[in-house]
Amino acid sequence: MVFGNMGDTSATGVAFTRDPASGERVFYGEYLINAQGEDVVAGVRTPHPIADLARQMPAAHKELMKVRAKLENHLKDMQELEFTIEDKRLYILQTRNGKRTGHAAVRIAVEMVGEKLITKKEAVRRVPADSLAHLLAPIFDRRSESQAKKIGSGLAAGPGAASGHVVFSAAEAVARSEKGEKVVLARIETSPEDLRGMIAAEGILTSRGGVSSHAALVARQMGKVCVCGATGIQIDYRKRTLSANGTTLKQGDYMSIDGTAGEVFAGEVATAPSEIVQVLVDRSLDGKKSATYQQYAKLMDWVDEFRKLNVRANADTPEQVANAVAFGAEGIGLCRTEHMFFEGDRIDAMREMILAGGKEDRAHALAKLLPYQRDDFIGIFTALKGLPATIRFLDPPLHEFLPNDPAQQEELANKLGVSVEQISRRVHELHEFNPMLGHRGCRLGIVYPEISEMQARAIFEAAAQVQGKDIKVRPEIMIPLVGFPRELKLQIEIVRRVAEKVAKEKKTKFHYLVGTMIEIPRAALVADEIARDAEFFSFGTNDLTQTALGMSRDDSGSFLPAYAELDIVDANPFASIDQKGVGRLMEITRDLGRKTRPDIKLGICGEHGGEPTSVKFCHRLGLDYVSCSPFRIPIARLAAAQAALEK
Amino acid sequence: MVFGNMGDTSATGVAFTRDPASGERVFYGEYLINAQGEDVVAGVRTPHPIADLARQMPAAHKELMKVRAKLENHLKDMQELEFTIEDKRLYILQTRNGKRTGHAAVRIAVEMVGEKLITKKEAVRRVPADSLAHLLAPIFDRRSESQAKKIGSGLAAGPGAASGHVVFSAAEAVARSEKGEKVVLARIETSPEDLRGMIAAEGILTSRGGVSSHAALVARQMGKVCVCGATGIQIDYRKRTLSANGTTLKQGDYMSIDGTAGEVFAGEVATAPSEIVQVLVDRSLDGKKSATYQQYAKLMDWVDEFRKLNVRANADTPEQVANAVAFGAEGIGLCRTEHMFFEGDRIDAMREMILAGGKEDRAHALAKLLPYQRDDFIGIFTALKGLPATIRFLDPPLHEFLPNDPAQQEELANKLGVSVEQISRRVHELHEFNPMLGHRGCRLGIVYPEISEMQARAIFEAAAQVQGKDIKVRPEIMIPLVGFPRELKLQIEIVRRVAEKVAKEKKTKFHYLVGTMIEIPRAALVADEIARDAEFFSFGTNDLTQTALGMSRDDSGSFLPAYAELDIVDANPFASIDQKGVGRLMEITRDLGRKTRPDIKLGICGEHGGEPTSVKFCHRLGLDYVSCSPFRIPIARLAAAQAALEK
Repeated sequence: MVFGNMGDTSATGVAFTRDPASGERVFYGEYLINAQGEDVVAGVRTPHPIADLARQMPAAHKELMKVRAKLENHLKDMQELEFTIEDKRLYILQTRNGKRTGHAAVRIAVEMVGEKLITKKEAVRRVPADSLAHLLAPIFDRRSESQAKKIGSGLAAGPGAASGHVVFSAAEAVARSEKGEKVVLARIETSPEDLRGMIAAEGILTSRGGVSSHAALVARQMGKVCVCGATGIQIDYRKRTLSANGTTLKQGDYMSIDGTAGEVFAGEVATAPSEIVQVLVDRSLDGKKSATYQQYAKLMDWVDEFRKLNVRANADTPEQVANAVAFGAEGIGLCRTEHMFFEGDRIDAMREMILAGGKEDRAHALAKLLPYQRDDFIGIFTALKGLPATIRFLDPPLHEFLPNDPAQQEELANKLGVSVEQISRRVHELHEFNPMLGHRGCRLGIVYPEISEMQARAIFEAAAQVQGKDIKVRPEIMIPLVGFPRELKLQIEIVRRVAEKVAKEKKTKFHYLVGTMIEIPRAALVADEIARDAEFFSFGTNDLTQTALGMSRDDSGSFLPAYAELDIVDANPFASIDQKGVGRLMEITRDLGRKTRPDIKLGICGEHGGEPTSVKFCHRLGLDYVSCSPFRIPIARLAAAQAALEK
Repeated sequence: MVFGNMGDTSATGVAFTRDPASGERVFYGEYLINAQGEDVVAGVRTPHPIADLARQMPAAHKELMKVRAKLENHLKDMQELEFTIEDKRLYILQTRNGKRTGHAAVRIAVEMVGEKLITKKEAVRRVPADSLAHLLAPIFDRRSESQAKKIGSGLAAGPGAASGHVVFSAAEAVARSEKGEKVVLARIETSPEDLRGMIAAEGILTSRGGVSSHAALVARQMGKVCVCGATGIQIDYRKRTLSANGTTLKQGDYMSIDGTAGEVFAGEVATAPSEIVQVLVDRSLDGKKSATYQQYAKLMDWVDEFRKLNVRANADTPEQVANAVAFGAEGIGLCRTEHMFFEGDRIDAMREMILAGGKEDRAHALAKLLPYQRDDFIGIFTALKGLPATIRFLDPPLHEFLPNDPAQQEELANKLGVSVEQISRRVHELHEFNPMLGHRGCRLGIVYPEISEMQARAIFEAAAQVQGKDIKVRPEIMIPLVGFPRELKLQIEIVRRVAEKVAKEKKTKFHYLVGTMIEIPRAALVADEIARDAEFFSFGTNDLTQTALGMSRDDSGSFLPAYAELDIVDANPFASIDQKGVGRLMEITRDLGRKTRPDIKLGICGEHGGEPTSVKFCHRLGLDYVSCSPFRIPIARLAAAQAALEK
């Protein structure tokens, strides 16, 4: 036993060999004169910063600095150490690798390579892949946050910080944002109809839904700040109020959300964007002037040296593609064509198509959609500069595109010149008990082949145009929700026929692949047959998880928390791949697929593609690539490198 | 070439060596003097019955009778032959095995064994298993039907014929039936809340839903006549009318439905119950006095001689169990405990349980349900007389038990002394996007273990009481919707704990099994782990089909017809097991399950258990039993025997 409470020549303290928050190579810590370790922890007396020790006990301080150097040299990592000084004599009670923020993890790893303490491999191994999210997220000014009034909390669904005027509808979000206002969109839950509002908002708050809800998914893909499932918060659309813990905010009131901690505040809290985003995405900062960016860039260079798995992005617009490429995407792994239909007037043409009485009316409405889709693909192919793009045909059930609300139905009726009854009847007809298992995916293209035909034409016409500008175009057309080999065969026939036709019309040639998503257990079980026609498989692990586990992502909030508590699941299967179940289906698919087509391209485009444990699993499976939302690309790249370095 | 139109000594005709409708051993057919074959088909002239030929052309008739005997002796089956008489000389143009009704198929097969034309094995092989449904179904009087006005058609979902006053709600069906009225229940679609009305009705008509809809499922299980998905029929609940083809029926008007042909009539058509049902179920007819029953019984004796697969019944009440045993069930393969909750006042206790604020309130409501469940099980165990009973714990999502309709919510609020808002809030809370994949099955028992505890207690207290009367009780407790091994483990712990406790209380011993349904792909993939705890597996192929194919049974009507037309599917996967997908998961389960527990009991309790092709597949898989609705047991027995006779 040593004692730090033997008078004023004794002390006790805790120190870090580097700053655990910033990673800076400074000695960092605090101590108390005439005290024991528990006194520091108890916080009754205010400790001194470690720098003061040099003045108060110069010998002990000098000794401590020697220990610091020795420990780092020996243990090759930033140390958190407990020390006691008993009558001027230093004793080290304990040392261990210190906990650190994401920023610190990167800086320490990179600088230790510079100091030749560790190798590049070790640096790559050491930075927790997820911690890169901290580097990319805007953050609240800490002082400002401590003055704000916390009114609730939910799931940390999109890391970062956002402040703005609270609004309760997508339309209001768009309207205010167009006037230059910053808004936070608060919804009970979000749906594809809210997309424009979500894009317009600084952050998204929902009172219902888990980390894989629509809100969270979109937030991650766009790098939006998001707190979801804040169940203690009552949102009243009619009154346009949000109430929690005795505080009621009206529309337009200021509020702030912290998507890293999952906290909700009334009032404004100041934020700042990540420097890395300023350099890569906003291009408002010169990378050479940002130390954070420099460290990040150095680490990512090493990462790319070691990793074997390619990393692609889930991106639906030219802007997202540009972001993705900036973050190092090697192509698009999932371009969801339906997201394009919600922008501007297109939704009306889409709705006209859905309301069409027969094939001819439908073709008429589809003809209106064709130029929109073609323009989108032109933008995407151009932004990709020759990188491949996996484009998924229309996937969601059609009712998602029609308004449920009677007022909106009336508005649409006036716009399209049809009766409200016609619209409400169609909404009723399209209603499904379990839409996730309903008329969607390739089932749409099978029943309405003219939709697939239009989409194929849009892709190839765009390809022809971009190729004309000497930019390579590599479309990989992906048919969703295939369960029966013949579904794919029939859809591929359409694609190949249209490709040939457009090639002739435009006097050009196309280099493209056609493949399918594996997102239904049956597809995994007959992958050998499907591989006869499919040139690639992309695992749609979101839906594959829902079907393999018989568990709806949107409804699992009522029992998954209990499942975690009772150790039934190791992790949320919608966040990290369920390796024994979903993963087994992936193995079966790989083996059966390669049996038929040894060089079949294998990828994953579910949300799991940006989650480190899942990325490592995909590496072990021997996939060609993972695809994730643009803001998770650095994380996926790092995880892929770590997987390659695992023995 | 021969010519039947060479004058009055020539003729042409078609004949059956036995009556193809009844199977009676009489020569049956028709002919035209001075005509060619096409004249018979064209139906311009009315042909003579074949008996007249004996008078008109005695020599040719005699010859024809010789041919008849020769053909049957040689071909060993009832023949349909085309003949021509050219100037008194008989020519046989063609002969083939004749098409026949179910009644005829059985009678001919059984009588040919008596005539030593064929063996018992051949007789069993020859009767199409499905055709037994005809023997069991009540039928319309054909003359009465031809005078009735057909107003629509739908899917033939429950074979047989039913007439009655049309009603549009379960409550009305019950009320009128209690007054002794026969009613046909017409609904847009049915839900578990309609159960009592469906039981009370002679037949069920729905304007929406396929052959696997709730209506069809219940109809088959109860042997109810049902036409479903009659899309041309408009049902207006508010006006209480049914309109189709210009005819409008008001509540109380007479209507008739033919569930064998899928036809809907305005007005009354007379019906008669099947003689086999009169003997076995109604016990209103002495089997010795019914030739149809005698033939059926003989065939079924041979069937049981050859089959290896056991056949159990899906039955939820003592009445259904008694019917099932009468039809030859060797136990219950699926007793759905939740069906019991809809009867009488129990639904109120169930609703109280669901509305309960906390564990204590819930326990209070569950205590009210306990005696109901116990009484049900006493009835069931008694009716089973020692046969085993697989009892499934609560499965459906809780919102199915609460009323959606505001008026019903108000009624319930008054009954339970709570506010309407409380009920509507709970309904809202329990709403799910994809209820099929939501909070149901063992997920309920995990989150609310007190429910499983009550159910286990009800089973064991009932078992103790029935055992006290010297009747063996063999409960097989089945945990639904298991996907993770630990779900089962936790539920089994409850079952074993309660069993021990009740055994001590009642000073008795129980012989029971605990197992699980395999109805989620993940369960199949980790069946080796699940088999560590499960003493049996029962394939829930309804849900396994939905999850493995990512296809909702209730929503597939919008694309499955196109899928059949385009040869994407061979058969409706909800009617006949999808052998490549779902069947593959069953094989995986069998192999993994037996690896851990070689003697694990394997069965199937999905609707497929009563479908001949699926039954044969189950035989080849080596299952121990199939379980199906009571009225399909003879069909399953026959199919099982045919499978055993296949090489």
